[in-house]
Parts: sequence; C-alpha cells; structure tokens
Amino acid sequence: MTPALAVDRERSAARIERDVEHLAGAAYTRSSEAIRRYAYTPEYRGTLDYFARELELIGFTVTEDPVGTLVARNRPTGEPAFGVGSHCDSNRNGGKYDGTMGVVTALEVCRLSEEHGLGLPLQLISFLEEEGSGFGQMLLGSRIVAQRVTEEDLRERFLAIDDGRSFWEHAEDAGYEPARWRECSSVLDGLTGWIEMHIEQARVLQDTGNRIGIVDAIAGYVHADVVVHGRGDHAGATPMDLRLDPTLVLAETALELERLARAAGQGTVGTIGEIEVDPGLINAIASRVRFSLDVRGPDDETYRRVAREIAAFAAESAERRGMRAEHAERQSLAATPMDERIVNALDDAAAGTGEPYRRMHSGAAHDTMCVADRVPTAMVFVPCKDGISHHPAEDADPADAALAAEIMLTAIASLQ
Amino acid sequence: MTPALAVDRERSAARIERDVEHLAGAAYTRSSEAIRRYAYTPEYRGTLDYFARELELIGFTVTEDPVGTLVARNRPTGEPAFGVGSHCDSNRNGGKYDGTMGVVTALEVCRLSEEHGLGLPLQLISFLEEEGSGFGQMLLGSRIVAQRVTEEDLRERFLAIDDGRSFWEHAEDAGYEPARWRECSSVLDGLTGWIEMHIEQARVLQDTGNRIGIVDAIAGYVHADVVVHGRGDHAGATPMDLRLDPTLVLAETALELERLARAAGQGTVGTIGEIEVDPGLINAIASRVRFSLDVRGPDDETYRRVAREIAAFAAESAERRGMRAEHAERQSLAATPMDERIVNALDDAAAGTGEPYRRMHSGAAHDTMCVADRVPTAMVFVPCKDGISHHPAEDADPADAALAAEIMLTAIASLQ
Repeated sequence: MTPALAVDRERSAARIERDVEHLAGAAYTRSSEAIRRYAYTPEYRGTLDYFARELELIGFTVTEDPVGTLVARNRPTGEPAFGVGSHCDSNRNGGKYDGTMGVVTALEVCRLSEEHGLGLPLQLISFLEEEGSGFGQMLLGSRIVAQRVTEEDLRERFLAIDDGRSFWEHAEDAGYEPARWRECSSVLDGLTGWIEMHIEQARVLQDTGNRIGIVDAIAGYVHADVVVHGRGDHAGATPMDLRLDPTLVLAETALELERLARAAGQGTVGTIGEIEVDPGLINAIASRVRFSLDVRGPDDETYRRVAREIAAFAAESAERRGMRAEHAERQSLAATPMDERIVNALDDAAAGTGEPYRRMHSGAAHDTMCVADRVPTAMVFVPCKDGISHHPAEDADPADAALAAEIMLTAIASLQ
Repeated sequence: MTPALAVDRERSAARIERDVEHLAGAAYTRSSEAIRRYAYTPEYRGTLDYFARELELIGFTVTEDPVGTLVARNRPTGEPAFGVGSHCDSNRNGGKYDGTMGVVTALEVCRLSEEHGLGLPLQLISFLEEEGSGFGQMLLGSRIVAQRVTEEDLRERFLAIDDGRSFWEHAEDAGYEPARWRECSSVLDGLTGWIEMHIEQARVLQDTGNRIGIVDAIAGYVHADVVVHGRGDHAGATPMDLRLDPTLVLAETALELERLARAAGQGTVGTIGEIEVDPGLINAIASRVRFSLDVRGPDDETYRRVAREIAAFAAESAERRGMRAEHAERQSLAATPMDERIVNALDDAAAGTGEPYRRMHSGAAHDTMCVADRVPTAMVFVPCKDGISHHPAEDADPADAALAAEIMLTAIASLQ
C-alpha cells in the first residue's frame, strides 16, 4: 500500500468533467446526435489543438508524429519519461468517454504532477484513429507506431470510409508526411513505462461495486466463421427424419460454446454474434447457415483450446446430422500480459486510497497492446454505466476518473 | 383393388410431356431463366388459351369465372360432374411442373375418358393465381371461389407486386368483372368430388421408392414469431456470468422444437427458418434475436399442442436466463382431411396398377384446401427430383403423371 498523495479529488473531477464536456461540444463532432470524430477531420484537428493548448499551459512541449499521433513531453526528446494517454477519436455513433476521457485523465496526471511539485518525467500520447471510423482500421495509430502495418497497407489498402481515397492521400492532404511513417516508432523512445486509462466498456466494475479496475492482461482472441451446409427443403412437406437442417448444428454449437467457455474459466468467453440463414423464409428449412465465433481470454493456451474444441464440435455435430461444416479462422491475436511491476504499483496506490477496486483483465483491445511490444505497460479501468459504450448513451463518472488520475500519479511516483 | 383400365401409359406420358414442354416455351414465361407466369399477364392468358383449345378438341365447353379461374365441362352447367385440376401459374423463379403438370394430367384424365368411351361426367378447373406471384396472395383463385376473401381485400388490400395497383383494377383491365366475385362460388356447383394431382415438393416419395402418393390430409399449421430481448454487451469484455445472450434461448428452443416434433409423431414437423440477430456483429453479444416458428401436421390437436409447448418453452428458457421472450402468432390454418371414400378409391386403383405407392399427408398448402369446404376431395402426388420445387431445377417424370392419370381415371370410374 502506497500512501495517497494529498490530491484534491473534487478539483480533479471538475477539471476532467470540464474537459470532457468541452470536447463533447458541437465543434468537436460531425454528428448532432453522437460523438463522431476521426482522423484528418476539422473536429479531430480541433480536439488535438485543445489538448496541445492545455499541455503547453503546464509547460509541456507538444509535437506530432509523421501521421498525427500527438506526443507531449516535459523532458527533452530522447530523455526517459513515463507514458500516459489513450486516444481521442470516437466511433461513428460514439459517446463522450471512450478514449477521450483517458487522454483527459492523462492530462490531469500531468497537471497534478506539476501542481504538486513532483515534476515527474512524463510523456502524454494521444494515438491517432483507434476506433477505425476514418479508415475501418482499429488501433491504426498505435499499429503504425508499433510498425504492425506495411507501406502497401498505408498507400493502397487502407481506404477512407467516406470517399474511398487512401490513408496516404488523406494524411498528405492534412499536412502530414506518411512517407516518414517508419519514424513513428520513435514515439515510444525513452519510455520507461506506460499506463492507459479507459472506460471499462463492460459491467464488471458496476456489477461488483468497484470504482477502479487494474488491468493485468488484455485478452487475446480468435475470430472465426462456421458455414453449415444443409438441404433447403419445404418446411411443411419434409418429415423430421428426412431433414438436413443446419440451424440445429448452430443450436448445438451455441450451447456447447457456452459450456466450454464456462468450463475453461480463467476469464474465457465465447460468443456467436453473427448468424446468417439462407434462404431465411418461415416455410423453408435453411439450406445453409453461417455463424461467427468470437473466443477470447487472457490466457492464450486456454481460449485457443476452447476455439479448437468448438470448431471440432461444430464439425462433429454437422457430421452426426449428415451435414458438413466448414470452419475458417478470420483473425487471431495473442493476449497481452501487463507488466507486473507497474500493475503492482497501481495495486498498491489503489489500496492506499481506501476505495473499492479489483484486478481484472480487459476483454476489449486497446492501443496499449501495441505499446506493450516495447514498453512495460498497464491499464486502469473506470466503470461505465450499464457497460454501454460506442453509443451516445455512454456514461461515466468524472469522479472515478479523478480517482484513477490520483492512483496513476501515485504509482508513477513510486516507480521513479 | 380396382382392376386397371387398359390405358396406354406411354402414349399418356408422351402427351403429358408434350403439353408440359410446350407450356415451358418462351411464349409462356416472363423470364428467360425460369418459369414466371401469373394472373393477367399475356403469358398466363396464353396458357389458359392452350388448355381451352385442347379441352374443346375433346368436346368440353370452356368458360371462366368472373375473375379468371378456368372451368371446362363435358356436361351442361349445373349437372353433376367429378372435378379434376390444379393451377397453371408459377412462382416467380419457378419450374415447369408445379401446378401446370397437375392441370395437364387432369386434361389427360379427360382425354382418356373420351378415348376409352367412358364418357365420365367431368369438370376441369385451373385455379387463378395459386402461387401469389402477381398479388402476393397464395391460393387466391380458390379462396375467391371458397369466398374466403372480402370485397375490401380484392378492391384495396391485394396489390400487384409489379405496380402496386389493386387486384380489382388489374382484373378489370384484363376484361374480367371482379364486381361479380361472389358468383365465383358457383365453380364448385354440382361437383360430386375433386381430385388434384401435384408434384410432391418434398422427397418422401423419392426417398421411399414410391411413384405415387395418395394424400389423406393436408397439414394445418401455426406460423409464429419469437422475439428474445437480451442485453447487447461487448463480446470480449463481458464475463459468461454477466451475460444476457438471446442466441442461447434461440439455441435451446431450436433443439426443443426438434425434440417435441419428433416426440409428437403423426407427421408433425417444426422449423425455425428465419433468424434475425441484432446488432449482428462478431464482437457483440446480441441485444435481441427474432426467429420464426413453423409448426405443422395433419392432426390439428397434435401440432397445435407442439406449437403451444414450444412457445411456453421459449418463454421459460428466456426467463431461466434472466431475459424476456415475446411470442406472437402470425397465422394459423386448420388441417384439411381428405374424403375417405375418394382416398379409398384412389388406393384401390393404385393397388390395381402394381406400381409402388403410399398414403401420405401433404405438408404444403394446395387449392384443394378451399375445394374441400364444399366438395369431397383428395389429392395424388408424384415425386419431384430431390424434392426441389419453386426453382428452375424442378424436375418430375411424365411417366409418373401418366400413372397418376390412370389411377385418377380408374378411381373416378369406380365412384360413379
């Protein structure tokens, strides 16, 4: 337990609320009904400018990498510093908190460090285009920093949702130099650690009565599709014994996935979120069903085993019923363990506040996954109401964010 | 067992094939890739004219009812006669056999009666618009004959798929007198019985090696929808214990419907043919699932019990999982038992041919359901390849239709 600093949480909460509400104003969103901002739009530019002004007010030097990820430091480039930040773009039908409150809270950590005379070496990062609203690519800024993209991706493959033109062209039009994209990796140079605060986007904290989540791992996942080939007969004229109904393979697989994920434990989850029935008529047995599989967890071995087992189960269920199931993996990503030293420092700092908190993993992906390639990292979650996010109804409490800022500050101070 | 008449089955098959192939020609379909003909189109008019000519050649008097159902008799109006027929419209992506081969086979029965000097009192009917391709209303001609529609339906509610104008207007434009629609009921006046031949539209005959099906009942059905309200959380961030996933209620209900239908026996079938998942994203637990229920059978009490039980099961499954399921019936129609005397006459006639046949029920709806309101009825099925119908790949054997014609002729003769 690290003794709490004498932080005025109410003042922090008021500042965080002011920043969040300001950035929810009409000048910062392209929709009158939601927060909608993404790379290279005037609304996004204005958001970066707001952070730049606020950071310069407390003595930080603000720059941007060659494609637009914002970097602010209170130490010269190259010198060691501790990283804090998140992203300030939104999904197209977004709320005020996802991403933005993380950058605002990182800004509050920087302010508190200065106000309390701690003078901690800090670097704030606001990653470009985390949500993919501009170019359909999630974690785009942090993937460029982590060099997890190719030049062909940026020049040709990643196209704007709005006009189909390339990321490259849009970046150049916005005054950036995408040809220097390899230099974006220097964003992480000199970082001794990294903490991202984010709303939880689920209801674990709310349902367990905690104000803070200390993330010890970001789940990995397997995304796959199963196509079951049945026989599209007449629903009235085909006796039960003569059917090849693929919806029953879907049904068995859905229940088995639930059973396997529960049995595996360790935070493993499994979901069928997409179901397509062909032809999809009330009086026709389906000829074909496609469904998605989303299997995740913080322990690679465990959730990958479940993903293999459910694929095998679907094939067996289809075969037992005289049908054929095809399984194809769409994408998979390994889990990202957080750094134990930083997690422990956050845990000690949280304990010092006397407020309810818990260790947990993140089921959702975050920019921190890309930072973790090179820098010891951790994350802090705050509750969001009913777990709703990516929606205008998204709601979170600035007082929780203020508590997170204090815990982050204490942890970073203890790690110096 | 009724002794077979000395029918030249090969000649019958050749005539049936010639008629079917002729009516599959370019002049009789609105599509180059399928049979597509429906009420009040030139292609449909031409089809009626073909039947009229062929019937007049064997001495039948051909008329049409006030909206276009074709009626041909070899006895004066009002005198007793035995009815045979079907429909000669198709669905929009149809094949050559559904409906049309039934009218062609009825024509063959009339020809054989004359050729063999039986001079049976016969009435051929080709019902208008069975498939609903013109106005989206199935069994429209026979429902008008049975007075199962209202004047408002015909004047205002039943609208052409092609141009949105009313059935009424289209009928008038085609030279009919829809204002006299109540007189259509006289189509059934004087009928002493009715037999419709139709392709099976399923694979029971093929899979059991039979050439003829003698239909002893047309299934009734209940069509319903179930909507399950879950909670649309993040698929990665929501632990298995905190989920309200409506796809699992769907899964349990699908398997229970299969179990209940099999357990009920007596030809009961149950199908989930439509599934809608909201929002339908790989990484989102569904917030809502809608699925259809189609429960049918020849025994009203049995299939209706299954329909009630599955509705109750879905509600319980949802409740057990903390969710809510809404059940709404769309439509239901009682089963139509066939007339025992006619069924037995067909059975005896079939037995007399030495060819493999079976008693069965029809899972699909047919015009005969409307005829059965006032006239003792039965149906004869012939196999269609792999059960495929309502599709250009629809295939059936004219030799089976010729066998059906012979059986119908023998049965009708035995009933005089």
